[in-house]
Amino acid sequence: MFSQIISAINNSKKIIILPHKSADGDCLGSAFALKLMLQNIGKEVVVLLEEKPFPRICNILFGVEDECEIDNDLVICVDCGDKARLGDRISFFEKCCSTINIDHHPTNTNFATHNYVNSTAAATGEIIFELAQYMNIEIDQKIATNIYIAIASDTGGFSYSNTKPQTHRIAAELLETGFDNASINQFLFDSNSMTRLMLMKEALNSLEVYANGKIAIVSITEEQMKNIGAEEDDAGGLISLARSLDTAKISLCIKEQNDGKEVKVSMRSNVIDVSQLSQKFGGGGHIRASGCTINADIKTAKAMLLSEIEKQI
Amino acid sequence: MFSQIISAINNSKKIIILPHKSADGDCLGSAFALKLMLQNIGKEVVVLLEEKPFPRICNILFGVEDECEIDNDLVICVDCGDKARLGDRISFFEKCCSTINIDHHPTNTNFATHNYVNSTAAATGEIIFELAQYMNIEIDQKIATNIYIAIASDTGGFSYSNTKPQTHRIAAELLETGFDNASINQFLFDSNSMTRLMLMKEALNSLEVYANGKIAIVSITEEQMKNIGAEEDDAGGLISLARSLDTAKISLCIKEQNDGKEVKVSMRSNVIDVSQLSQKFGGGGHIRASGCTINADIKTAKAMLLSEIEKQI
Repeated sequence: MFSQIISAINNSKKIIILPHKSADGDCLGSAFALKLMLQNIGKEVVVLLEEKPFPRICNILFGVEDECEIDNDLVICVDCGDKARLGDRISFFEKCCSTINIDHHPTNTNFATHNYVNSTAAATGEIIFELAQYMNIEIDQKIATNIYIAIASDTGGFSYSNTKPQTHRIAAELLETGFDNASINQFLFDSNSMTRLMLMKEALNSLEVYANGKIAIVSITEEQMKNIGAEEDDAGGLISLARSLDTAKISLCIKEQNDGKEVKVSMRSNVIDVSQLSQKFGGGGHIRASGCTINADIKTAKAMLLSEIEKQI
Repeated sequence: MFSQIISAINNSKKIIILPHKSADGDCLGSAFALKLMLQNIGKEVVVLLEEKPFPRICNILFGVEDECEIDNDLVICVDCGDKARLGDRISFFEKCCSTINIDHHPTNTNFATHNYVNSTAAATGEIIFELAQYMNIEIDQKIATNIYIAIASDTGGFSYSNTKPQTHRIAAELLETGFDNASINQFLFDSNSMTRLMLMKEALNSLEVYANGKIAIVSITEEQMKNIGAEEDDAGGLISLARSLDTAKISLCIKEQNDGKEVKVSMRSNVIDVSQLSQKFGGGGHIRASGCTINADIKTAKAMLLSEIEKQI
């Protein structure tokens, strides 16, 4: 499977790498690792991001620089399930006659000339590691750091169920290059802005439990967001505080938006099917993680949700 | 080095395993893994803990049962740096003529008949894994789970600088047995009691920063502890909230105790030597993590500490 991709790379001189939009750690770590790898074999390579300014994680990746469009004879999409996730950069993809798609999403649409999709890989970073080995490109400390960031990001620091024996074996090889893994992990998993800490405080202040602690709910108002000076992004993942309650079977985060006209609800559960639950309110998602938007204030939405959940728990 | 230990094990029939007092995940995971290993080769084995009730982590370890003293011909101390850490169970050690000491603490005093101390191991669990291989004992899913819990506990889920390539290689072998690593990691790193969440809320409510965010301080009063119904143990690690602030160069947790007569101070820094700082207040510890007790109220202690820190930052 790699052989076609390697031929296409060997036949090219100028390469554009495209991570998916709303680029995350796996996607960016993989993209910049691949850039350094291909530069090391004499290619001219740029990574083009949809986002400006660059996401925060770019501060710890190697090979990041402000890059502009180049004449190119190859486009490589990384960690990108379908063409729509290329956003405004789709023009680079559409106008290039040779395209590669390297990904681990099971829903990947095989949209490129050459596709390498391995959904058993915990992260696209694992595939980039294997590609380097296959191409006999030395994985130096910078490349290793980028790949480690990719894999650590998508496995929650080797904690999620997608972490396989092979994931740890690759991590072992990467650590052999001697980079400072502790600093990376602190940056990725143990670092908060003041805005974030203030939102965590508000979320904990709002924490309510029902059904003997089986239901845990946090909520955030627009006024709190405004007072703290928080952006939409800062509020992501606050549900994890509710989810961490050891008695909770289902957790919710209810966030006011659109001038109080509606709330955005996130749901997590290891016990009940929150995909079905969110569908009752016009939303959707996975069995264990889903969401919906309800045209009501926080208090009303909470009562509506509780009345449904209490039937099931 | 293992050969003497294996001889002693082979020459014994009834074995007592002693984890250190205030037993943690590495110590208990290692102890119960070793118990299962030695049972599998026909030994009668008990693990005796100092603590009753058993620490929370025993809920996810295999081989845990309420065990009483047995006649024994071998005592194995696990993860225990010196005899004092055996607490009241030292009598079992003192009256047994054959004793083994398996540990990874560099300060280990080699206090037993046979000592195996490897301070390059991230966790004693790594040594137990290697011992099983050396003794040719199959590492089944239960043993693997216990060892994984040991290693994950002492490496902060493979995130600390003690995590070496070998640590990941061992994790890979353990995962091959197919246990549910995600549930273990959630239990270890992403699970809070309501008491704990309430303490986190109070700590965040108390968060203050100085010197343009370089100094972050959280504090907890005895009244808050009492209102929440929190025990001493629940308050451990609250400093990590202050430490997580991305601008913080030094973080402090100041906790009132002894009817307001004094405060216990924890300090963390990657920039200044908090060992020296705490020594100025009669405390001690490591360069990056230390503590002291100050005979003052929170406000006064904070002023005293700030005046010292601001000289250095």
